[in-house]
Order: sequence, then C-alpha cells, then structure tokens
Amino acid sequence: MHTDLVAALDIGGTKIAGALVDGHGRIQARAQRATPAREDGETVMRAVEEVLAELTASPLWGRATALGIGSAGPVDASTGTVSPVNVPGWRDYPLVQRVRAAAGGLPVELIGDGVAITAAEHWQGAARGHDNALCMVVSTGVGGGLVLGGQLHAGPTGNAGHIGHISVDLDGDSCPCGSRGCVERIASGPNIARRAFENGWRPGPDGDASAAAVAAAARAGDPVAVASFERAAQALAAGIAATATLVEIDVAVIGGGVGKAGDVLFTPLRKALSEYATLSFVQRLTVTPAQMGTDAGLVGAAAAALARRAEAASAGV
Amino acid sequence: MHTDLVAALDIGGTKIAGALVDGHGRIQARAQRATPAREDGETVMRAVEEVLAELTASPLWGRATALGIGSAGPVDASTGTVSPVNVPGWRDYPLVQRVRAAAGGLPVELIGDGVAITAAEHWQGAARGHDNALCMVVSTGVGGGLVLGGQLHAGPTGNAGHIGHISVDLDGDSCPCGSRGCVERIASGPNIARRAFENGWRPGPDGDASAAAVAAAARAGDPVAVASFERAAQALAAGIAATATLVEIDVAVIGGGVGKAGDVLFTPLRKALSEYATLSFVQRLTVTPAQMGTDAGLVGAAAAALARRAEAASAGV
Repeated sequence: MHTDLVAALDIGGTKIAGALVDGHGRIQARAQRATPAREDGETVMRAVEEVLAELTASPLWGRATALGIGSAGPVDASTGTVSPVNVPGWRDYPLVQRVRAAAGGLPVELIGDGVAITAAEHWQGAARGHDNALCMVVSTGVGGGLVLGGQLHAGPTGNAGHIGHISVDLDGDSCPCGSRGCVERIASGPNIARRAFENGWRPGPDGDASAAAVAAAARAGDPVAVASFERAAQALAAGIAATATLVEIDVAVIGGGVGKAGDVLFTPLRKALSEYATLSFVQRLTVTPAQMGTDAGLVGAAAAALARRAEAASAGV
Repeated sequence: MHTDLVAALDIGGTKIAGALVDGHGRIQARAQRATPAREDGETVMRAVEEVLAELTASPLWGRATALGIGSAGPVDASTGTVSPVNVPGWRDYPLVQRVRAAAGGLPVELIGDGVAITAAEHWQGAARGHDNALCMVVSTGVGGGLVLGGQLHAGPTGNAGHIGHISVDLDGDSCPCGSRGCVERIASGPNIARRAFENGWRPGPDGDASAAAVAAAARAGDPVAVASFERAAQALAAGIAATATLVEIDVAVIGGGVGKAGDVLFTPLRKALSEYATLSFVQRLTVTPAQMGTDAGLVGAAAAALARRAEAASAGV
C-alpha cells in the first residue's frame, strides 16, 4: 500500500498543474500548462488532457489508485461540475466525467481550491495535528476551507469554508458577489491597496501600488498603510471569530500573498481577534501563517483523494 | 432494542426538566423542578438530583441505557462541566460526574441547549430529512446548533452553532459578550423591542413592551415596528448566509418566541437572505419555522445520547 500514488490536478485561472503524489505528500512526477482561460471550454479541457497525458505516460502512473482535483470555484462536487469565475468557457462543465475518461477510469474526487489548500495544510502544514481548523488564502480573493473533527469538511458541493464571502458588515460596501461587507471586500490584497490609495497613500518611484507595497509602507510606519492593514485585520478577525463560534475551530491558518505580510497583518489580527472571539469556547483560538508553498493545491487535492479512498475502503466499497 | 429508553435532562435558568424518552422521541415519564438559579451550586444540583430521583423511581427506569443533558451554556463537553450564564452558582461545575453518580452510572452525554434543540428538530421536527441544517432559537437570546453530513455537530465543547454571537456588524453596538454587532445584539426579542421603543413606538394600554407586542404592531402596519423586525431579519439573514457559506447548510429552522412572529419576521427574512446568500452553492437555502414545542430540549438531549450510544456500538465499545 505504501508504494501507491495518487494523481492530483490543481486547476486555476492562470495554470493547470498535475502531479503524482506519494503517501507522504511528496511529488514524484509533475506536468503543467498555462490555462487558456479566455478560450472556449473544450480548449481549456485540452490543456487539462495534455497535463494528464504527461502523467499517464510516466512509468509511475501504474501505481496511481485515485485522482483528486482542486479547482477554482464555484465547484459542484455533487454533480462533478465546475464553473470557475475566471474561466468563463466552463459553466457547469462536467470536469469529473472528462477527467475520469482521460485518466483511465480512476476514482475522481473534486473539491474547491480553498478546500484543497486546507487539506494540504492539515496533512503536511500548519494545521497538522489540529482536529478543528480554518485555513485561508488571503490574496487577490479570500478563500478557505475547514477541518472538523479531524476530517476535511468539504460540504455537499465541495465549497465549504468560503469565508471570503461572509458578511461582517451588513450595511457595508457592495461586493461583486452581490452581498455587502464581505470579508474579501475589506481584506483582499486589492482592497487593502485601494483603501490605502483612497486615504492618501501613494506608491513610491517604482509605481508599485500593490498590497505588498502597502505592507512595506506600513512596516516603515506610514499611518495610512498601517490603518488599511488594521481594517483588513479587523474583518478577518470578525470572520475567523464567527467561524470559531459556529463550528469550534482552534486554529486559523492564513496563507496567500497578504498572509505573507507578517507582523503588519498578524499583530493587529491577534488584537482584533481578542475583541471578536469572546465566548469561553473560542478564546483559545490562535492564528498562524500557512506553511505550504505553491504545491499546496496539488498536495491537498491528493490528500482529499487519499481520504476518500480510505473512506471507501473502510466502508467496504 | 426497540423497548430501550433514554433518560434526558433539560437544564435552564428557569426550570430543570427530566424525562424518559423512547426510540420514537415520545416522552414516557417526566419530572420537573424550578431552577433555584440564585442559590449556591449545591442547591441547584439538589434540584437536579430530585428530578433524577423521580425518574429512577419510575418502573421504566430499568430500560434506560443512556442519559443526555442539554444545558444552558456555555458548557464544556470535553471536561463535563457547565457554567450557565444565568446560574452563577455553577462555574466549571462538574455536572456530568454528578449526574452519572445520581443516575447509577449510565453513560452521560452533555451538549449545549441550542445543540439540543437542533437534535430535536433534526430527529422529529422541521430539519428532519436534512443532512445539513442550522437550527436557531430567537428569543431573549439567540442560540443555535448545526447538523452537518447527517450528524449533529456539537463541536469539541458542545457549543457549536452559537450563531447569536457572530458579528455581522463589525463596527456595531457593543454586545454584553464583549464583541460588537452580534446577531443577538440586533435580533433578540429585547433588542427588537428596544429598537422599536428608541424609534418612537409605544406600547398600548396594556403596557406590553415586548417583542410580541412589537410584532402585533408590525402586523397592524406600524412602520417603526415593521422597521425593527426588518433590521432583525437583516441580521439573522447575514448570520444564516454566513453559516451556509461556511458549512453548506440547506435549511435554517427558526424557533423561540421571535420565531413565532410569523410573516412579520419571515417575509423580510427571506428577502434579506436573497441579498446576503449570493454564491451559487447557498442559493437553495430555505428558512422555515421550528416544529418542536417546549419538550424540544428533552427530546434533543435524548437524541444526542442515542446518537452517541449508536456511535459507541458501531465502534465496538
């Protein structure tokens, strides 16, 4: 059993990555294509099939016993379809069926990309050893996933843990999702940069107006930059505290570009968390940076497929 | 097996109820005492022991195979202790150990009262047949519980689903819990009444200034009363949508006194929900009134004990 491998696909708006992953989360073979995100659905699928063709040509392929897909969302695991916001050619696209056909009939498990990252952090990263965890990606958007009772909680459609689109400010700014005051609307990188700019912060001579540049300015003491990170931290804290109050998590792992800002984010985040996470059973909650790197999506997709395989085995399937 | 019974305790700030419950959720014997909530801890425990003494004296007691406790919170199922806000004599009180001793060593399961109500609605009420549900009590306070993947999700300490204290207004009014803009701070009965009064609504000749009186005024078309319910509905909708976005529930069941307000609450609630529950995987979410009556706490405590017994049996314990 220990020599079994799992195939994994990480499908995003920029790249389609594939790998064969061993039982310790190590990548033994890999393939990648740029996502032709503006093309029609079949063209996008062709890129997936090219990645799979490279993997199936590997001498290791014969050891693969399952395949996990982490995809940009929304996904629908109940129907095996995906409708990634950034891939307009795919709407209710039957990805699971197409991948299964291209992968020689292996059992296929589909989850959202935030859920995949969470599976990776729980298996090999900052959430290892935690039975109840929220893992987040704070970047261009804000995504996430949950581990509950020691198990990945993907939800019936594979989208659970989507903390970026819970409202923490019910009268707040309109969010592109249609709601108001969502965590993402306040705490994503572009919103951190926008808020700093609106309040008078200006980029340096290099013209870099990104959240990373705002973080650098905050580290140098710029009060507008500091305030923009503090506001993002407040929204993240309210969302994390809400999650802990609803499902009793004891750790929140934060990755993504904004998660890499360090103390500029984590110091106000811990302070705000103490203000919003007040009930006795959520006070032990801690926040910590993510540990997995760019392979998190692949490793997590593999973890989800492994977990499903173990579940099926224990159910005698 | 079908003749087995489960003992149940429902412990609140007003009364301590006990029952023997059969496998269909029917109460076969019952006992009750007023909660001496202002007395010392041992006096409160004596009332619990009197309820248990009546139950153990029943000719049916010999058929009881487990005991479930639903208690006002916070509870800590991991340590078997309770610290109910309204019973100051109990702080980290070892309720499970004391009840087990008084109940002849039966296995004891402890959950919070919101979780108990949820177990009852899932077993016999409005959440029956739903694998993923939020059940709420909207009354003097706002509590709740979750069913995830077909199972009650009590969380490690038995408090999960505590939707009353998630912040939906991060800059909002201070809540007694220490946070700001909690669902309870906006949507509980006393807050509905307070907001109506602050905005000029006045009780009728009977002097009734309760949320029920505000509901009656709203039904009669009083715009201030209508607006106060609309604001409560907005906060409930934001909280319910957040829960659905985080854990993928497909129904929210609303009970408690405010839940009985009918269309005055549910019409604006359904409208607000369509504004906050925007992602594809939460749009199917419905809200519905609770079906269980005053025995919900007892029936739910019994359900939790039954579920734990079944779990232990399937694990070979």
